[in-house]
Amino acid sequence: MPCFFKLFFLFSLFFRFSFSHDTNLLPRPLILEYSDLVGEELKLRCRSWRVAGEANNLSPWKTIPEECEEYVKEYMVGRSYAFDLELVSKEAEDYAKTVKLNDDGKDAWIFDIDETLLSNIPYYADHRFGLELFDHEEFNKWVEKGMAPAIIPSLKLYEDVLNLGFKVILLTGRSERHRSVTVDNLISAGFRDWDQLILRTSEDHAKLATVYKSEKRSEMEKDGYRIHGNSGDQWSDLLGFSLSVRSFKLPNPMYYIP
Amino acid sequence: MPCFFKLFFLFSLFFRFSFSHDTNLLPRPLILEYSDLVGEELKLRCRSWRVAGEANNLSPWKTIPEECEEYVKEYMVGRSYAFDLELVSKEAEDYAKTVKLNDDGKDAWIFDIDETLLSNIPYYADHRFGLELFDHEEFNKWVEKGMAPAIIPSLKLYEDVLNLGFKVILLTGRSERHRSVTVDNLISAGFRDWDQLILRTSEDHAKLATVYKSEKRSEMEKDGYRIHGNSGDQWSDLLGFSLSVRSFKLPNPMYYIP
Repeated sequence: MPCFFKLFFLFSLFFRFSFSHDTNLLPRPLILEYSDLVGEELKLRCRSWRVAGEANNLSPWKTIPEECEEYVKEYMVGRSYAFDLELVSKEAEDYAKTVKLNDDGKDAWIFDIDETLLSNIPYYADHRFGLELFDHEEFNKWVEKGMAPAIIPSLKLYEDVLNLGFKVILLTGRSERHRSVTVDNLISAGFRDWDQLILRTSEDHAKLATVYKSEKRSEMEKDGYRIHGNSGDQWSDLLGFSLSVRSFKLPNPMYYIP
Repeated sequence: MPCFFKLFFLFSLFFRFSFSHDTNLLPRPLILEYSDLVGEELKLRCRSWRVAGEANNLSPWKTIPEECEEYVKEYMVGRSYAFDLELVSKEAEDYAKTVKLNDDGKDAWIFDIDETLLSNIPYYADHRFGLELFDHEEFNKWVEKGMAPAIIPSLKLYEDVLNLGFKVILLTGRSERHRSVTVDNLISAGFRDWDQLILRTSEDHAKLATVYKSEKRSEMEKDGYRIHGNSGDQWSDLLGFSLSVRSFKLPNPMYYIP
């Protein structure tokens, strides 16, 4: 299990060194229709795009902007992504500590799984960090390997909220048929003691993630849970109805799930 | 009026050149309790803090982190802030163009004023870009000068939504007693033809911005308006109830209004 953590960091180091000298991008048409962007200006434009995504300002998108492939790669494998994850985890922990829990075991914290607890960077590194159109079959093959490493700051938050006495509920867009491999992957990555693991059943597959996840939160409320915190890398993890008291949007510039 | 635009850009240039060589920060205790941060790492940590704010991940805060003063200053007066504003404006415009308007004059777009249509950078440049605790009296003196320049990408969006046929409603936390100076400032900065300008009356002053603005949006709905878009630099401009179909969070790392 500690091997997974090391893998994640070694992986980061490897990509930082192998990619970091490859920043001479060719001029290409860009997001804001500037056609002569290179170097620093391109990086700033791509950062604006990334931050706009984090602030939920973008319309649904299917792939990252082509001219931002290098930027997204550097963001993901460099320190920025790790620092962003650490800060969100820290803010969530600070909030969690202020919550007064009842002793009825109904104070809940929801975690999404992909890009929230488990990292699919190894998969996306092979698929141009979100520039390739999402391929369900290919991604399923990766999921079935059960090798996704833990996102370390999220593992820390996960353990912190458990220690504080929250019930942890895992709510994922993964399919019910991946329950067993998901459980194995979570455990080998260091996650344990969740109260529920909710995956999509066949009747949920046609629903938008926002609707599916809101319905599940609504069921939790009906079961008496008080949802204090919700951690997810997609706005569709956090918005809709039956919202948590505080939501924590983890960074993810690689893909968008409506 | 074009003089205001020039002022804004000249101002940017001036600060970029005068501040940009002043990046040798002393080590100070930081957000994540690292005490030895300097240079690139400090910048990345401060950026994580800024982006967390844009994603609504931070608890209410009264001043920017002390160690991030230089970072916030550089962000605000350099190209990053301008690029972020441009992208949000562009996304909003793209969305506005997709909206099918009725011919009853009830399709509305809401704009906040401070840091959304008008820029208070000249004021905040004199107050350490948000490191000084907010001083109502000092800020009111600045407001009463009526000299806040237009935020150019927002002026473009403003004109675009007017041209598309939206009714523009201005909803601001400014006080009713500043109506006249606010109108003069808006007009001299290039804004015109709004449908309503809503300011805080004495009975609204004790309310949280989220509540005050939600109540006003609710009144708009009762008046038959369909609120398609809402542009604001604070999450309290955008959240609560009677939400717009799409919200656009403009960047603002200088202050937080709950």
